[in-house]
Order: sequence, then C-alpha cells, then structure tokens
Amino acid sequence: MRVAVFAGDGIGQEVTAEAVRVLEALDLPGLELVYGDVGGVAYRKHGHPLPPETLDIARSCGAILFGAVGDFSCDHLERHLRPEQAILGLRKELGLFANLRPATVFKGLEDLTTLRPEVAEKIDLLIVRELNGDVYFGEKGLRTTQDGRREGWDMMSYAEDEVRRIAHTGFKAAMGRRRKLCSVDKANVLETSQLWRDVMIEVAKEYPQVELSHMYVDNAAMQLVKNPGQFDVIVTGNLFGDILSDQASMCVGSIGLLASASLAESTFGLYEPIHGSAPDIAGKGLANPMATILSAAMLLRHSFGLETEAARIESAVAKALGDGIRGGDLGGQAGTREIGDAVLARL
Amino acid sequence: MRVAVFAGDGIGQEVTAEAVRVLEALDLPGLELVYGDVGGVAYRKHGHPLPPETLDIARSCGAILFGAVGDFSCDHLERHLRPEQAILGLRKELGLFANLRPATVFKGLEDLTTLRPEVAEKIDLLIVRELNGDVYFGEKGLRTTQDGRREGWDMMSYAEDEVRRIAHTGFKAAMGRRRKLCSVDKANVLETSQLWRDVMIEVAKEYPQVELSHMYVDNAAMQLVKNPGQFDVIVTGNLFGDILSDQASMCVGSIGLLASASLAESTFGLYEPIHGSAPDIAGKGLANPMATILSAAMLLRHSFGLETEAARIESAVAKALGDGIRGGDLGGQAGTREIGDAVLARL
Ligand SMILES: CC(C)[C@H](C(=O)O)[C@@H](O)C(=O)O
Ligand SMILES: CC(C)[C@H](C(=O)O)[C@@H](O)C(=O)O
Repeated sequence: MRVAVFAGDGIGQEVTAEAVRVLEALDLPGLELVYGDVGGVAYRKHGHPLPPETLDIARSCGAILFGAVGDFSCDHLERHLRPEQAILGLRKELGLFANLRPATVFKGLEDLTTLRPEVAEKIDLLIVRELNGDVYFGEKGLRTTQDGRREGWDMMSYAEDEVRRIAHTGFKAAMGRRRKLCSVDKANVLETSQLWRDVMIEVAKEYPQVELSHMYVDNAAMQLVKNPGQFDVIVTGNLFGDILSDQASMCVGSIGLLASASLAESTFGLYEPIHGSAPDIAGKGLANPMATILSAAMLLRHSFGLETEAARIESAVAKALGDGIRGGDLGGQAGTREIGDAVLARL
Repeated sequence: MRVAVFAGDGIGQEVTAEAVRVLEALDLPGLELVYGDVGGVAYRKHGHPLPPETLDIARSCGAILFGAVGDFSCDHLERHLRPEQAILGLRKELGLFANLRPATVFKGLEDLTTLRPEVAEKIDLLIVRELNGDVYFGEKGLRTTQDGRREGWDMMSYAEDEVRRIAHTGFKAAMGRRRKLCSVDKANVLETSQLWRDVMIEVAKEYPQVELSHMYVDNAAMQLVKNPGQFDVIVTGNLFGDILSDQASMCVGSIGLLASASLAESTFGLYEPIHGSAPDIAGKGLANPMATILSAAMLLRHSFGLETEAARIESAVAKALGDGIRGGDLGGQAGTREIGDAVLARL
C-alpha cells in the first residue's frame, strides 16, 4: 500500500503534513509513504515543476495525496516550467481523466455561505469534470499573422471516446445518487460541444434509469446561483468544469473543507484539497488542513477500498467541526497544527 | 433617427411591442421604426435566421432594438440555420464588439436574489465582454481521426488588435466609474489568455489612473459568489464573458429587468434584454417587458445621445417598480401589457 505524497507549494506543505499524521495514526498494515517534489518547489530544486523522479514515484504508487501548486515567483517562467504544469502533467501522464467534485453544505456551517440559508442547505451535487482533453491539452501557441499582428491560439477538441469515457463516469455516479445527470456544454456555438452532446445522448441508452438533461454553460452558471438544489450530478468538459466546479464550491461557503478526487480508469487516483497554495498565509500555520485530511479519506476509500478507515477520518473531522474547531477560513481561530491535533484526538 | 426593431422569437415579440409603445410615446422628432425578422421566425419565413433583408435594414439604421432568439423546433437544423446565428451574425457583420452588461440590485428588490441581502446590496459592477472573437468565431468542425473516431473541434484565438480595442472600452468604462478594472482570463493554461493579459498590461499604461488587476476565470466565478461587491469593471473575452455575465446577472436576482448594449466603434449599437426567448411562457402575455423597455432607454442614450429621454424611461420604470408593479419573474402578477401601461402612465 504505497501512497505518494506531493505537498507542493505554499500551504500545500503544512496541510499535507497534517493529513499524513492522520494517515499514520490509523496504523494501516503495509502503508508506505513516498515523498516527491512538485510545483515551484520542484522547479527550484530540479529545474522542472514535475521532474521525472516525481513521475516515477507516482507510477510506483497506488494513489497520490496532493497539496497545492502555485507560486507567483514563477510567473515569469515559460509556460512549461510553471508550477501549474505539475498538476496538468500528472493528470495527463497518469490518465487521471475524471475529476469528482462533490459539493454539500456541512451541517452547522450554513451560515458561512453567501447564499441564503434556505438556498444553500439544498445543495447536494457532484460535478464530474473531464480532465484529459479540451482546450487544456490541444495544440497552442503565439503566432504572427500575415499583417504582423501577434495572435494567441489554442485548439479546443474532444474525440468521441474521450466523451464516452467521462459520460460513463457521470452516469455511474448518477446511478449511485438521485439518478439525474445534467450535461453542460455550449452546443449552440461549439462543434466540440455538439459532439459532446451527441455522445452523451448515445451513452444515455445504456442507463435508462438515469434522467439526462442538457444545459448551456451560461445557463448553468445562472442556475447554480438561482437554484443549486436542482442539480444531482453535472458532467462537463475540462474548461467549463474548471469554472463551474469552483463556482459550486464557493456556494458551499467552506472551501477549506472541500476535497476532490482525480481518477484513472483503474483504482489509481490523485486526491487534493480544492483550495490553492494561498501564498499570503503560507508558512504561518494558519491554513485549515481539513480539506486535505478529507482528501486522504477519499484516497483510502477510492484507491484502496478502505471504507471503514475513510469513514473514521470523516467522522473525526465532523466531530471536530461539531465541537467548534474552526480554521480562519471558517471564521475561527484554530491553526493548522491545532486542527490536526483535534482531528487526531477524535479518530 | 431610424431604429431597427428585431423582435425575434418567443416572448421577444411581446416584450418588444411594449418597448416600442414607450419609444413612440416620447414623440421623438424624426423617429422611424423599421421592422425586420430574425431567429426562428425569420428561418420559417425566409429560410435563414438572419436574412439579407434584415441585415440591410440594420445597416440603414442608427441602432437596433432586439428582442430574443431561440426556438427548440430549430434544434435539428444545421448550425448555420439555427436562431442563435442571427445574434452571432449581427454581432460579427456589424462589428458589435463590446457587450456592456451592468449589474446592480434594484432598490426594493433586494429580497429577490438568492444571495444574502448584505452581499447582494453591494453589487455594482459592469461586465465588458468582447463579442467578435474568441472560440465563437474561429474555424470549427467535426472531423474523423485517422483511427476512425469522430472529433469535434473549435479554434480559440485573439489577435492583439482585438484585445486592444476591448481593453480601451474597459479602461474607459472604468474611468467613468470607480477606476478599477479586473481582466479575467485563464493565462495559466491558454496562450490566447496569455496574449490577452500581455495586451491588457500594455494598454494599462495609457490609463495610469485605473487600477488593473488580473484574475483567472475559475477564481472570478468563485469571487462573484463570495464577494461580488469587490468588482467595479470586469473585462473579459467572449466565452468567459458569456458565462460570467450570466452568473453576475443572476446574482442580482431580477433578470427580467436587466438590459444590455452591444456596441460598435461608432455610435451604432444593438440593445436587448438579457433574458432569452422563454418559449414556455411565450404568447401568453406573461413576460416582463421592463428589461426591453430599459434596453430602449440605453439605445436612446448610447446611440442617439438622448440622455433626458433615456432617464425619463428609466425613472418611469423605477416608479412603476416602486409602486409595486411586478411581473411574474419578480414574484408579482402583472402581465406584459399591464406593465407596459404602467410604465407609459409614469413617463
Ligand atoms: C492550476 C490550474 C491549471 C487548474 C486547472 O485549471 O485545472 C486548477 O484551476 C484546477 O482546477 O485544478
Ligand atoms: C445565444 C448565444 C449564442 C449567445 C452567446 O453565447 O453569446 C447568448 O448566450 C448571449 O450571451 O447573448
């Protein structure tokens, strides 16, 4: 049971350390943690945000616990050397094509969202975002037009098998929930979306119990404000998923608690908090490690089938929250270590 | 003073009729209204959503009052024959490159938004969306890969002059407001965005009094939920603007009141309510025409410099709202004609 630990930049280091303490406290037989560098940290040590050694470590493990990448001091670097390339590279190289982003309001934390409580409390949705295709991984570049103007360009595309694969993930997730799948696209403008929609309709035939609907992305952004409770599972492409999953997370109000999973076709997965590297509070012991601790729980469940242990972690976090342990992001005073201690004490 | 009136599909017909009554009641010297078909209506009559006659009418006028396009019965048509092509075609053919989408919460209507009142009441932002470029107008298609898979593709791009033009619109708008401009992109992934950002920074030198900031689109979608009051002017590309402007509109809660302007480099412009064709309530006299009436006010102000008349319309609408006249979209009972009458009575 080998787990790669890639803490990365900024608060990634601190929050991952607490999640590691929690994993170690479970005394899992055969648990082996292997550390690797990613992001700006890796660039400074090895000259690349995702060095080959790190990728080798990942390939030798059954799952990755990931902190965060992002470092403004790398902004001047060429694109392929920037910290973000670490996460993009891991997703692509390891075939992590399905990003699962659940959003529900935690009991007792309804007051943290900017939505009215009666709207927020109904949120119980899962965004399934495709991670290996779209305009993220198409050809791109800067060219000079014939008349000498600079032009930036990026190719957006999806092939049918890429759509089919994520469609199955979406339908299966819906089968385990309320059986409603909303596919989000921009088929009134994009050919990429038209193919996306066509394939969704084809795959739907294999899941007659799931009710499939289609929504344009602009309308989806509106509906997430107007009535987020209407959604069960949303399936969408890489770019729209990036935007909508962050919007949905913020609707929940407690971004320091949200974990996410990026899964391959096997049981392999990468687990990370959805918050970023937060350079403004990095190194100060202020970051809330709960989202990373909950990511570790997801890791045990999805990649190693350890449902009991995952639930133990989740209930320890819920108890700590119930006892009023709150990080600064939740309007409280508890520091990183203190929150880690509180969760450990309730394991 | 020729104004083209393109009512279009669904409720477009009803709401535009009320705005026309308001325009006519002002007894503007030389006002001439010229009617044309767009959208599904135009396809059924002329075989095209934007027939050449309609484009000719537009070109002979100083401004366009637009209703809405969209008709599900056209969903099976080839892309270039669908109703949406009318609005896309008008934008492109007439060089309507700048979409201005103001969002503020109307006094007395704070209870309509799903955001907490203390968050919503601070909203006072303007989204400046580029309308002539991006993945909307790049080459696109459906192809078969070498190994026989279908692939949908769309080219995203921006050339520097396109970015520069909309940057100036954004900076000028900020100069007339609180002098804060937030440029939204995805420069950590897209080359198109990297050029966008570079050009924004170049143009910023001409507006030293404006504070320019940059935000990734996923973060912008979050910040619009967390604290929309932080924004003054947001400038962004066609695709991100489509999503964020709809999200921001819904934050305001009263989408039946929001007007928008799509402007060319001259005084020419197209003015439309931001709501769509709402086929579910079309023809029933239920639609709220206020957004279209307010679009007519914007038209008088921006394209004909008739500030007094624009303000007269706006204050008549505000009075009607103050007197409790509310359409179904605002939780009231007033029908289309009744609202039109109420505004006319207060002109
Ligand atoms: C860091 C960035 C490249 C990344 C993305 O856009 O996918 C991030 O926003 C995310 O959602 O994980
Ligand atoms: C109808 C559609 C093509 C259009 C767009 O995406 O621009 C609409 O959503 C809008 O924002 O005006």
